[in-house]
Amino acid sequence: MVVAGVGDDGAVLRPPAGRELVTVIDTMVAGTHFPAGMSARDVGYRIVAVNLSDIAAMGAQPRWMTLALTLVEADADWLEEFAAGLYEAASEWGVMLVGGDTTSGEQLVVSVQMSGDLAPGTALYRSGATAGDTVFVTGTLGDAAAGLEQLSAGAGEQYLTRRFARPSARVGVGRALAGIAHAAIDLSDGLVADLSKILEASHAGAELDLQRLPLSEELLRTVGREQALRHAMGGGDDYELCFTLPESGLPAEISTEVTPIGRITREPGLVCRDGDSVVPFDNTGYRHFR
Amino acid sequence: MVVAGVGDDGAVLRPPAGRELVTVIDTMVAGTHFPAGMSARDVGYRIVAVNLSDIAAMGAQPRWMTLALTLVEADADWLEEFAAGLYEAASEWGVMLVGGDTTSGEQLVVSVQMSGDLAPGTALYRSGATAGDTVFVTGTLGDAAAGLEQLSAGAGEQYLTRRFARPSARVGVGRALAGIAHAAIDLSDGLVADLSKILEASHAGAELDLQRLPLSEELLRTVGREQALRHAMGGGDDYELCFTLPESGLPAEISTEVTPIGRITREPGLVCRDGDSVVPFDNTGYRHFR
Repeated sequence: MVVAGVGDDGAVLRPPAGRELVTVIDTMVAGTHFPAGMSARDVGYRIVAVNLSDIAAMGAQPRWMTLALTLVEADADWLEEFAAGLYEAASEWGVMLVGGDTTSGEQLVVSVQMSGDLAPGTALYRSGATAGDTVFVTGTLGDAAAGLEQLSAGAGEQYLTRRFARPSARVGVGRALAGIAHAAIDLSDGLVADLSKILEASHAGAELDLQRLPLSEELLRTVGREQALRHAMGGGDDYELCFTLPESGLPAEISTEVTPIGRITREPGLVCRDGDSVVPFDNTGYRHFR
Repeated sequence: MVVAGVGDDGAVLRPPAGRELVTVIDTMVAGTHFPAGMSARDVGYRIVAVNLSDIAAMGAQPRWMTLALTLVEADADWLEEFAAGLYEAASEWGVMLVGGDTTSGEQLVVSVQMSGDLAPGTALYRSGATAGDTVFVTGTLGDAAAGLEQLSAGAGEQYLTRRFARPSARVGVGRALAGIAHAAIDLSDGLVADLSKILEASHAGAELDLQRLPLSEELLRTVGREQALRHAMGGGDDYELCFTLPESGLPAEISTEVTPIGRITREPGLVCRDGDSVVPFDNTGYRHFR
């Protein structure tokens, strides 16, 4: 598949016959997308994971990637750790690094472009959500936002900080949904913001049941339910998948990895219910008026 | 070919059946790779052109690209001009922008990843140069280095500054050489540095005839022959192609676009002759001892 990788003016690749390609790109800037002090290994791991997450949201099988790295200084130890994290995340899904460009600048900027493949016509888009679909998410929500707060406050490694620094791209779930889910997106900006993109693209609305949102015990224990919900709704950086399809169509092999949290409606807009009350919210989290 | 472009988590592409893909990536940092004051339109044009040049050096037909753009501030006028330059260069070769990520940072960093395609087994590498091959280059050399000096000194637009800001990617020549040239590279670091990469990869040497180096009248008039040769040998940024093949194998359709400048030898090392004298040099230009 990789005819020639790193080392020439470009890489040469043989795409699998009869497949479509998916290509994604994601950039992280130190101090903007992660705390400037995050470990080199985590930076390397995370830039691959967030691209894997985009590939997963499209339903594709990740194959190869290229790297653009702008460094403040050429520190061999930092680079070695960065590469270790990069390869760790890539090797989990057999992704090959086929090219790169390293430059120097005033700030650490790391960008990965990743390609994957899938059967023609099976790519997942944001635009297919249909009234009556169930809205599902993978994993638990809000952990990464709480982890980022802890990292920024100088906390050491622990469950929540790892959820920010080393997100688990849901490639297996995405693959299982290719050609099946009506709409999908990965949760990088937060559930409200990202689900709203599905609703806008699909000209539909949704009702969410906040009591069904999957929240980790660690998150609930650390910040309490109110703040946990705020992180889950508006926090971002979870890199879980959110997708819609008729509940009966959910592939059995992923049923234990996903949680139904609501349904798609014909009326535009996003309505969030917490028991009997409707909860107003905005993209940065929700505001609870009793 | 582009099933779905910008606007979802990723683009979906249908690669042409039975072709191999070539993928390249090139990053430019303001102040490092171009003067911080270069026009937005030229920044947009140039980042596409330097990637087209890598695609050309591989012998491929450019098809699509993704963009990672880190901006100091979101200036709508700047972005509009940047996009105009980007699309101008891309449209010359029918390249589609299929994805991108725009971030904010302390410094302008722009990275493009481009993909193209070619017939299987026809990609051009640095490693195939063979004793007896003739060494060719496209266009004229040294203009961009002189243009960069002028730009950095605050000069307005003119022939030499345009040669830096808006390089002409030799895509047509590269396509004609696919499956034919023994080795190829694009001249981004300068003739000595880049030809040396061919020689190292090919375990060969070369003899160059400095009197045959193609130098523009504008360059000779502006800086004189001595400095023109220095720019041609060590200046970089020309984005011309350098390639090797037996002279009799040169495709007729490109014969007017290229200049023979030397030949590949069995003995390692690069020997430069100026008439009867051998000229010592290093990667940053050549030093002439009489």
